[in-house]
Amino acid sequence: MKRFMNDPKNFVTEVLAGVAAANPNTLRHVPEYNLIVRADAPVSGKVAIIQGSGSGHEPAHVMNVGRGMLDVACPGDVFAAPPLDYVSEAIRRVATDRGVLLLVNNYTGDRMVFEMAQEVAEADGITAELLFIDDDVAVENSTFTIGRRGVAGNFFVIKAVGAAAESGKELAEVKAIGERVNANVRSLGVALTACTPPAKGAPLFELGAGEIEFGVGIHGEPGRRREALRPARELIREMVDTIVADKPFERGSRVAVMINGLGATPISELYLLYGHAAECLVEAGITIDKSYVGNYCTALDMAGASVSVLELDDEISALLDAPAVAAVPAV
Amino acid sequence: MKRFMNDPKNFVTEVLAGVAAANPNTLRHVPEYNLIVRADAPVSGKVAIIQGSGSGHEPAHVMNVGRGMLDVACPGDVFAAPPLDYVSEAIRRVATDRGVLLLVNNYTGDRMVFEMAQEVAEADGITAELLFIDDDVAVENSTFTIGRRGVAGNFFVIKAVGAAAESGKELAEVKAIGERVNANVRSLGVALTACTPPAKGAPLFELGAGEIEFGVGIHGEPGRRREALRPARELIREMVDTIVADKPFERGSRVAVMINGLGATPISELYLLYGHAAECLVEAGITIDKSYVGNYCTALDMAGASVSVLELDDEISALLDAPAVAAVPAV
Repeated sequence: MKRFMNDPKNFVTEVLAGVAAANPNTLRHVPEYNLIVRADAPVSGKVAIIQGSGSGHEPAHVMNVGRGMLDVACPGDVFAAPPLDYVSEAIRRVATDRGVLLLVNNYTGDRMVFEMAQEVAEADGITAELLFIDDDVAVENSTFTIGRRGVAGNFFVIKAVGAAAESGKELAEVKAIGERVNANVRSLGVALTACTPPAKGAPLFELGAGEIEFGVGIHGEPGRRREALRPARELIREMVDTIVADKPFERGSRVAVMINGLGATPISELYLLYGHAAECLVEAGITIDKSYVGNYCTALDMAGASVSVLELDDEISALLDAPAVAAVPAV
Repeated sequence: MKRFMNDPKNFVTEVLAGVAAANPNTLRHVPEYNLIVRADAPVSGKVAIIQGSGSGHEPAHVMNVGRGMLDVACPGDVFAAPPLDYVSEAIRRVATDRGVLLLVNNYTGDRMVFEMAQEVAEADGITAELLFIDDDVAVENSTFTIGRRGVAGNFFVIKAVGAAAESGKELAEVKAIGERVNANVRSLGVALTACTPPAKGAPLFELGAGEIEFGVGIHGEPGRRREALRPARELIREMVDTIVADKPFERGSRVAVMINGLGATPISELYLLYGHAAECLVEAGITIDKSYVGNYCTALDMAGASVSVLELDDEISALLDAPAVAAVPAV
């Protein structure tokens, strides 16, 4: 394992310090609790949006903090849920009298911590709602999950509820929007290589020279099957077809499409996949209104990609278009 | 080699098709000449900005096309200069009576083609100026270069001349701004792994299990030395010190800093590097006004990163802040 790091046990803290240093006007790092917080939090008159998860999925979620996005991200160590007291501190730092919405990808460890954190918050007099994200169609139950896993579709939930909160909507409305986005999005990922947690120093699983994991999870969880790498056009067709059949997405529907890199995939390949995915959707009579290509929810240094398709309506579409500020921009 | 692709000989064309498909309102793909063109080009009353280079450096340069950036990108095959007739066609498609500025990273093959293309343009009655970018401090001459190589500092030149052209400045002024940005920027890269061109199918060079290439080029060219991987904090200190001493950047200067991923490096590690780079610059009495962290100029699937530091003045700073549209945004 060759990585840009120092002592692996300081990896997450040093990454967060860098995120805050690169965004001095908009973000703050709270090293005692591993938090990245909006510099202007708590934002009065606004529902606060909080996401916690294991680290290793960057830019999710520490680089999704900012106006129109999250108020705070509360990462745990690599691929580990954050401790309860860290989550409770995150909530206290951003809570307003409009309440807080806790976004949780559907992993058993994360659910457990956030359900307890909700109780602590309520005991503190803070109104807190939970929203679970489970967009991965690959498998029903998984290594760390009962039900479906939450993966890159998470980004759309953050963007929509972040914009809704910014516009002054009530907690119940914001949560309902998030639930609708989650219900409308489906994702599926493929790994070309395993990933290596810094503290472990060895790959989480083994893939042969020509093998891929179809339906991989963002912690390296097994997918539907291990198989030989195929041409990108064939691979993406099965991914899109699986997603379309699962929801199902009907002819005439309008969607947002995301090709998400899993950490070590060149952006050129992501765009190549995008082109093929778009062809498949157009053939299925589905209209692409919005496109996202890049790294949104990664698995450390895994080479691989996922496809997400989100059914749009006018409200969700407007929320995705709303201005937002996250970590340093591309241009 | 496991990659998301089909026949390697179609790789570049299929990537470009994906770029255009993901940006239907702003970009056009011209497959006969491998071009990505602004949908509204030629933009009358504006100096046109053109960049050509080998492919494999994405987002440079095909994802840097748009308002306030490039009018057209003319990529060659992977790590190969574009053919002359492709460059000439690119120029014809975007040229206006305000003239065109040709941005060329300093590699012998690219220089040769663009110098010929300038002559062809002038014969066509188009006023064309050349601007060579050579920000890499690692080595003086290199495998494909006489003088210094052009690497990620290229982004700052594109952004500044793109904004200057958009604001209506004359060709001579736009070129002078680009030359000042190039003179003000220094970069240095490190490879943790080699990269594998799709058509070759094998790594361009070999690095041992614990080895890095200090000063690597974006085509895998050798740097200053091969050595053992060190903790990130030590490594980045030498990179920043080398850059600061080269220009030199003086105490009290204001800079933009970029940590650029070379293709397969997780963004978490780039932010970790950013944090350390910022510490070193602050210690040197240098003020960081702007921060860029992400993939700006890559080397296919190389794991590695480069640091760029750009001295700012009020004009360059305003040009970097000017609105711009490139390929699909992160939020």
